[in-house]
Amino acid sequence: MSDIKRVGFIGLGIMGVPMARNLMKAGYELVVWNRSRPGIDTLVGEGAAEASGPREVAEHSEAVVTIVSYAEDVEQVALGPGGIIEGAHEGFVVVDMSTIGPEPARRVGARLAEAGIAMIDAPVSGGERGAIDGTLSIMAGGDEAVFERVRPLFEAMGKKIVLCGPAGSGQVVKMCNQVTIALNTLAACEALVLCTKLGVDPQRMLEAVGAGGASSWVVQFLAPRMLQRDFRAGFKVEHQSKDLRYALDAAHSQHASLPGTALVRELFASVEGDGLGGEGTQALVKALEKLSNVTVGG
Amino acid sequence: MSDIKRVGFIGLGIMGVPMARNLMKAGYELVVWNRSRPGIDTLVGEGAAEASGPREVAEHSEAVVTIVSYAEDVEQVALGPGGIIEGAHEGFVVVDMSTIGPEPARRVGARLAEAGIAMIDAPVSGGERGAIDGTLSIMAGGDEAVFERVRPLFEAMGKKIVLCGPAGSGQVVKMCNQVTIALNTLAACEALVLCTKLGVDPQRMLEAVGAGGASSWVVQFLAPRMLQRDFRAGFKVEHQSKDLRYALDAAHSQHASLPGTALVRELFASVEGDGLGGEGTQALVKALEKLSNVTVGG
Repeated sequence: MSDIKRVGFIGLGIMGVPMARNLMKAGYELVVWNRSRPGIDTLVGEGAAEASGPREVAEHSEAVVTIVSYAEDVEQVALGPGGIIEGAHEGFVVVDMSTIGPEPARRVGARLAEAGIAMIDAPVSGGERGAIDGTLSIMAGGDEAVFERVRPLFEAMGKKIVLCGPAGSGQVVKMCNQVTIALNTLAACEALVLCTKLGVDPQRMLEAVGAGGASSWVVQFLAPRMLQRDFRAGFKVEHQSKDLRYALDAAHSQHASLPGTALVRELFASVEGDGLGGEGTQALVKALEKLSNVTVGG
Repeated sequence: MSDIKRVGFIGLGIMGVPMARNLMKAGYELVVWNRSRPGIDTLVGEGAAEASGPREVAEHSEAVVTIVSYAEDVEQVALGPGGIIEGAHEGFVVVDMSTIGPEPARRVGARLAEAGIAMIDAPVSGGERGAIDGTLSIMAGGDEAVFERVRPLFEAMGKKIVLCGPAGSGQVVKMCNQVTIALNTLAACEALVLCTKLGVDPQRMLEAVGAGGASSWVVQFLAPRMLQRDFRAGFKVEHQSKDLRYALDAAHSQHASLPGTALVRELFASVEGDGLGGEGTQALVKALEKLSNVTVGG
């Protein structure tokens, strides 16, 4: 347990609610706020206190966890009118677990630092399942002493917890994570299309390739959903698109060239263009299917 | 054990020698031939008989395993002057474990079938390590009864053995395997470049992303070699290039469009253009490093 006892939580979506719940289970007093009601009602019903906005969350807590969708949301909640910065006090820590890219994270962190407030960027992977089970991977960036103060919070929500480096490093590693998953997903899509077009049972293909050098989490867990035509979202296309945009922005800021990531981003853009941004990332296969006039599985 | 006792073996390279050795260990009498001496000398020293060419191999065995580099080599050895077809007899089976693409495999199989000889295409994955340990993945195509006759041979050399469908199906699945590995390799390369350009320790990145949705055999085993600048070949760039060429040829024959595979093939072409075709496929990172003016690890 940390010296921190009262924790604010802002962003009560699919990820936020179970993460906040795991903090309560670990004994923290929670003060919550969200743009919409359902998440608030759920957690207040389980014993959390409700604040009227980010400022009041900060006034009544020693650290606040934020997990929202976009960089602009983090800026608004942290620095905007009625934001965390107005309610924060000495020793306060902002733990931003949103995926917003390194540059926005550093910018918000620098503004908070001017007001004497510490920030750790700590995006997660593992999806809703990991959030519920408390088995998220947490990729943190920031000052080591501050990281150690909030580590017990991370331990309540995650399993693999890595301090990747100074401010923004957690975001960098999360970008790397998304780049890797996105290209691994493209790999599975192309293998399934090739197999199907050449008349071989893709189920047997997955069985044969899943054991060796081609094995991946994507082949094991996402490819079977493509074959079953199960496009429910573990992680949404529109969020992966956003993350790849942040990854390419970050890459270009340092003149890193990522041709594969750019390609898969374009293919996700096609899926979004068909109005499927709310489906899971396994819907990437639909772009490849269109290119080859084929339907995989089903 | 099969009704087959005497097995021919043609193609005694990095893969062939340990695979032939595992057949001998399982009790088969071996008759071997190869284009060059070293593999022959090794196996004859361990008890194999030497034949003067493919025809004589076939004359003195009940089934022959071939594992050579290119489609043209298989055609030459099976159908050329002094080839297997000239020495084969009733009940004879050709087991081609080379990676040559489905169309050449079907073509050779059809020519052999005209002469009453059965063929199974059965390319492998798992590399030299898998060949030595007898833990290869074997992706087979062909007639089920013939497959069952030679299954005991496969069990002496491999672990995961899947009959994927009729003639050529093993080659199709191997293409899918190579497409998947190639794009998973690109994923790891781009993640390492991004991480390095953005100033974060790539070792920590691999630690953080290796546990979750981004995990793969490539991230676990190949990416660390990139960081250690260890480009020794488990599987050579020039062989992966050849396999991707076969995969794209097969794809295009059925109008399947594989944009990611095409991209990674172009990047391997760049690596080959630098004279690095003999390095391991982890050398793909060198093409990405050139694009971004960076060196990863080291």
